[in-house]
Amino acid sequence: MTTQERIEESLTAEVVASFAGTADPRLKELLEALTRHLHAFIREVRLTEDEWTRAIEFLTAVGHITDERRQEFILLSDVLGASMQTIAVNNEAYGNATEATVFGPFFVEESPLAGDGGDIAAGAAGTPCWVEGTVRDTDGNPVPGARIEVWEADEDGFYDVQYTDDRVAGRGHLFSEADGSFRFWCVTPTPYPIPHDGPVGALLKAAGRSPMRAAHLHFMVSANDFRTLVTHIFVEGDPQLEIGDSVFGVKESLVKKFEEQPAGTPAPDGRALGDKPWARARFDVVLAPADLR
Amino acid sequence: MTTQERIEESLTAEVVASFAGTADPRLKELLEALTRHLHAFIREVRLTEDEWTRAIEFLTAVGHITDERRQEFILLSDVLGASMQTIAVNNEAYGNATEATVFGPFFVEESPLAGDGGDIAAGAAGTPCWVEGTVRDTDGNPVPGARIEVWEADEDGFYDVQYTDDRVAGRGHLFSEADGSFRFWCVTPTPYPIPHDGPVGALLKAAGRSPMRAAHLHFMVSANDFRTLVTHIFVEGDPQLEIGDSVFGVKESLVKKFEEQPAGTPAPDGRALGDKPWARARFDVVLAPADLR
Ligand SMILES: [Cu+2]
Ligand SMILES: [Fe+3]
Ligand SMILES: [Fe+3]
Repeated sequence: MTTQERIEESLTAEVVASFAGTADPRLKELLEALTRHLHAFIREVRLTEDEWTRAIEFLTAVGHITDERRQEFILLSDVLGASMQTIAVNNEAYGNATEATVFGPFFVEESPLAGDGGDIAAGAAGTPCWVEGTVRDTDGNPVPGARIEVWEADEDGFYDVQYTDDRVAGRGHLFSEADGSFRFWCVTPTPYPIPHDGPVGALLKAAGRSPMRAAHLHFMVSANDFRTLVTHIFVEGDPQLEIGDSVFGVKESLVKKFEEQPAGTPAPDGRALGDKPWARARFDVVLAPADLR
Repeated sequence: MTTQERIEESLTAEVVASFAGTADPRLKELLEALTRHLHAFIREVRLTEDEWTRAIEFLTAVGHITDERRQEFILLSDVLGASMQTIAVNNEAYGNATEATVFGPFFVEESPLAGDGGDIAAGAAGTPCWVEGTVRDTDGNPVPGARIEVWEADEDGFYDVQYTDDRVAGRGHLFSEADGSFRFWCVTPTPYPIPHDGPVGALLKAAGRSPMRAAHLHFMVSANDFRTLVTHIFVEGDPQLEIGDSVFGVKESLVKKFEEQPAGTPAPDGRALGDKPWARARFDVVLAPADLR
């Protein structure tokens, strides 16, 4: 080991040791590991003092644009894949259970009850879309009475809560039937950008990355004795899937066919859609057992 | 490799690949390495979703307390040893050259010229202290005309710029003589706390760590054809050296004897100190050649 390596390593060891007196053992573990990885990063890239200064300035700008309505640190975590990695770590793959993905910032508690076959769009602009599927356990048994929360942006790329008129649209919940099946109307999801007029947007620009998220429909499925599933389904053929999802939420298994139905095609529940085309998709959910750890 | 490991590793690879289009190759390198270490941290500690949320809240608090006069992100970097590791990386050990340490936030451009044997205290409260030494190259040759900047807190633990009365005290500069020697009066440095009433202070408290810095006298020594040295000297016997310096600036080689002189001991330059005790210290500086890389 060179003198220089010894200096750098003993510094890291000294900082790690400084956390020895942390009362909470988990906090101690987190601070020690954070120190090791942060120091390893600085050493590996040979971070210059000027780059350090620019990093401080960047974080300061992220802090200053963050307020009650905008969380730029979450956005930063998202575009670095840190949010998605946290989700991966907390939703360990379990057999054939449906994969999880990011929760996102637009979920709202106490959404309207849509009921089986109901319309969660509730006036949100877009192509009507019929979604059906079943909720099962990993052995293939139906899970009745699972609570299915669904939420999405309208075709202009906005969630209801991004409008200032207090509308409630593009969100709702229903419960799986005795045979585990469910069905509802919504609108076909379309790509939308994460907020990109701040420092995180500047970072994406410098990296030549798109702020767009691949089109998706959010789900949260919960039932007694099962691990709550937070996920999306994505739209097969969405060009944004090729370009890349800005928060890395896409998983192959979650990309679903949204079959376009020409105007005049009869709807599965007899709904009168006039001369509008519509779409249909299928999402079969498999829930992992609770208490996996 | 388990399915879970494959999921986590491929996510990291996907995020790293997303930076492939970064125009600036150095920024690309930094973002890729940051992604790898950040993901490795999350995976190693199995970061929970709740811990992730608390990390976001912590960073938000750091951002919100930061303003023109207070830089809590720098403080955070300091207490995690990231500032000191950056300095270590940029001031690679070179032979017997004097070691570098943190710059700190209290340097001011265009300090008063103290002149050889002058008093940089300029009224700052504290025990008068005579400091002398030489500036040499790594072969032992004197370096004449080196600019020596010195700054320090007063015995109440405050730098002049922390007072609101525009005073200039506890800072100044001089130049080494033809034989490389220099000498000046200052006050004996005493420990002082970094600001600890914000989120970083709360972190130190949770970790059972002191916010105090070991007593130190700041130096910046520059001369043509030499690497500029930013460093401190510390006070041998300062109890804070045992407790730990809150920003990890201490290096063995920088701890110096500050010899207390009883009242009445004649000063080296004949200065009349009345019935006050005073102190003396020696700091021999060795500058590394410029352009080491
Ligand atoms: Cu690492
Ligand atoms: Fe979304
Ligand atoms: Fe200082």
